[in-house]
Amino acid sequence: MSSTTGQVICCKAAVAWEAGKPLVIEEVEVAPPQAMEVRLKILFTSLCHTDVYFWEAKGQTPLFPRIFGHEAGGIVESVGEGVTDLKPGDHVLPVFTGECKECRHCKSEESNMCDLLRINTDRGVMLNDGKSRFSIRGQPIYHFVGTSTFSEYTVVHVGCVAKINPAAPLDKVCVLSCGISTGLGATLNVAKPKKGSSVAIFGLGAVGLAAAEGARIAGASRIIGVDLNSNRFDEAKKFGVTEFVNPKDHNKPVQEVIAEMTNGGVDRSVECTGSVNAMISAFECVHDGWGVAVLVGVPNKDDSFKTHPMNVLNERTLKGTFFGNYKPRSDLPSVVEKYMNKELELEKFITHEVPFSGNQQGFRVHA
Amino acid sequence: MSSTTGQVICCKAAVAWEAGKPLVIEEVEVAPPQAMEVRLKILFTSLCHTDVYFWEAKGQTPLFPRIFGHEAGGIVESVGEGVTDLKPGDHVLPVFTGECKECRHCKSEESNMCDLLRINTDRGVMLNDGKSRFSIRGQPIYHFVGTSTFSEYTVVHVGCVAKINPAAPLDKVCVLSCGISTGLGATLNVAKPKKGSSVAIFGLGAVGLAAAEGARIAGASRIIGVDLNSNRFDEAKKFGVTEFVNPKDHNKPVQEVIAEMTNGGVDRSVECTGSVNAMISAFECVHDGWGVAVLVGVPNKDDSFKTHPMNVLNERTLKGTFFGNYKPRSDLPSVVEKYMNKELELEKFITHEVPFSGNQQGFRVHA
Repeated sequence: MSSTTGQVICCKAAVAWEAGKPLVIEEVEVAPPQAMEVRLKILFTSLCHTDVYFWEAKGQTPLFPRIFGHEAGGIVESVGEGVTDLKPGDHVLPVFTGECKECRHCKSEESNMCDLLRINTDRGVMLNDGKSRFSIRGQPIYHFVGTSTFSEYTVVHVGCVAKINPAAPLDKVCVLSCGISTGLGATLNVAKPKKGSSVAIFGLGAVGLAAAEGARIAGASRIIGVDLNSNRFDEAKKFGVTEFVNPKDHNKPVQEVIAEMTNGGVDRSVECTGSVNAMISAFECVHDGWGVAVLVGVPNKDDSFKTHPMNVLNERTLKGTFFGNYKPRSDLPSVVEKYMNKELELEKFITHEVPFSGNQQGFRVHA
Repeated sequence: MSSTTGQVICCKAAVAWEAGKPLVIEEVEVAPPQAMEVRLKILFTSLCHTDVYFWEAKGQTPLFPRIFGHEAGGIVESVGEGVTDLKPGDHVLPVFTGECKECRHCKSEESNMCDLLRINTDRGVMLNDGKSRFSIRGQPIYHFVGTSTFSEYTVVHVGCVAKINPAAPLDKVCVLSCGISTGLGATLNVAKPKKGSSVAIFGLGAVGLAAAEGARIAGASRIIGVDLNSNRFDEAKKFGVTEFVNPKDHNKPVQEVIAEMTNGGVDRSVECTGSVNAMISAFECVHDGWGVAVLVGVPNKDDSFKTHPMNVLNERTLKGTFFGNYKPRSDLPSVVEKYMNKELELEKFITHEVPFSGNQQGFRVHA
């Protein structure tokens, strides 16, 4: 048991005091974990668009002051009452969505959308008492998606913590707690391309590149990257992308371009942009008879997915996925193992490391 | 070898001389089968809406005179050159769509949309020579979907003939060559409900009842029938339907009614009406996380399937099917066996038998 168990910990955190205003490194007080909670020492955290999106708080109810951050790796400092499968010292990934292991979703083999711990961007407090574990001079600071990893210490529900191989380098595997798993799982768990098949990836950002990496791991022989920015193709080749299509280079819909390139359509497609037009193209570019399209990117509130129903009737499948269909606690450890056995090449995803603050903790942000 | 092998056969057929005009029982000449063709003696045929639809020929290019009919059972009379897996005397079901066993679709485990023999309602001739095998006093009479079973004898491509157990009563199993297999397969092969699950069936016509029968066979515990005609519920109970929803009885969308009845949605739905609004309801009424909706009904030309993409992203699956995903030659024999071992109750689907003409052949139409 560490000397801090049961004590309030004072540490540094990057606090967002107001929407869109620069984060400020502050001394925060982190209360001990309550029932079914875990306090983590965060060693590495990365930055995701979702943090930025909620920090900007355009169109959402602003919830400030708040500590953002949800892609991270850390070590268990102490555990609250009732926590039996984690102990101080365990290496873990906190995850923005959870797995209670009790609800209908957790009991279903197919779903990872836990009723209790499904991502909730509007909640800034812990479930146990409806309060925050962070404070500065008595003022509560809100949590973000149950993780708040832009802090040296954070408190997380046990259902949002994946225990991983302690030999795994946390500075690398921390990126598995969000976008990389989302894209990778979309391909490996949902699209499931067969060896030798063709896969189209819409959007070559981090999630799309992870989806391409999944297609490469699955042994796809053609991986067609689709992006409005042609500069992304060179980078994408490292992730197995073999061909590139920029819709702006063509006078016809990109689904027709892809159908012509592939004798009727690709075997699988994965949509990682969130643009509803890309979603429609991704669906219509898969081959009739067996094609499967998987939607990953998050749409706008007023979008409408439209297609002629014959495109469905001709034996195409449309599926959506959330966090790559990974159940955080059950499945993330095996994704870490894919990295450990060199199947999954995580280094490619990490462009640079920056110190989080001038302090001595080796606390860094991966972007 | 029968005495008619290689000869033109004169027999009775119901000929449609013009769109929408009553069929006329005529003496027709049926030429011998050419390469990869089979001549069948049709013993039983049933009537399907598709026959009526193309007989009315509203909105399609009319192709007359023509012999309709595609749900039937018969016996092989003779075979053409190159036919090795059928011989005179074999009991068979002719099918409106085929299986060449050579194309990408036939070689795919997932598809039954054969490139060579996929249903073609515009073609009135045989593939081998582009001509008809039917004539009346030298005037060619067109074929319909490669089957033309409203004739005592017909010529069919070998790829459109399923050889079945000779012990199976053809007057019952003839209904398996179209709508019953379409509905049954949509549930058993595509929706794949688990034992104890909930299934919604949209449309309680023959195809929808067959979809319900599939759900019953799969062990679904709740089978919710949805139809605008409440009189259909009583009949539907025989097919395992346990609950009934008439959208006209509710002020809110039927998908909301079903979600309330089922704590968030059914596990599976099967759409058998062809109405695009029913398709949208069928998709939106399945549970997030694991729900699968299967479209069977054929839409209108200008329909648009519309839904908010979040309905997809919340881990729902939308699939379409054609002929219940059965490959006609490979799979129909096993559907006949399901009837033979009393798993599938075909008698329920047969409402009455009528003589086809006043002749002596026992040739009847099942409606």
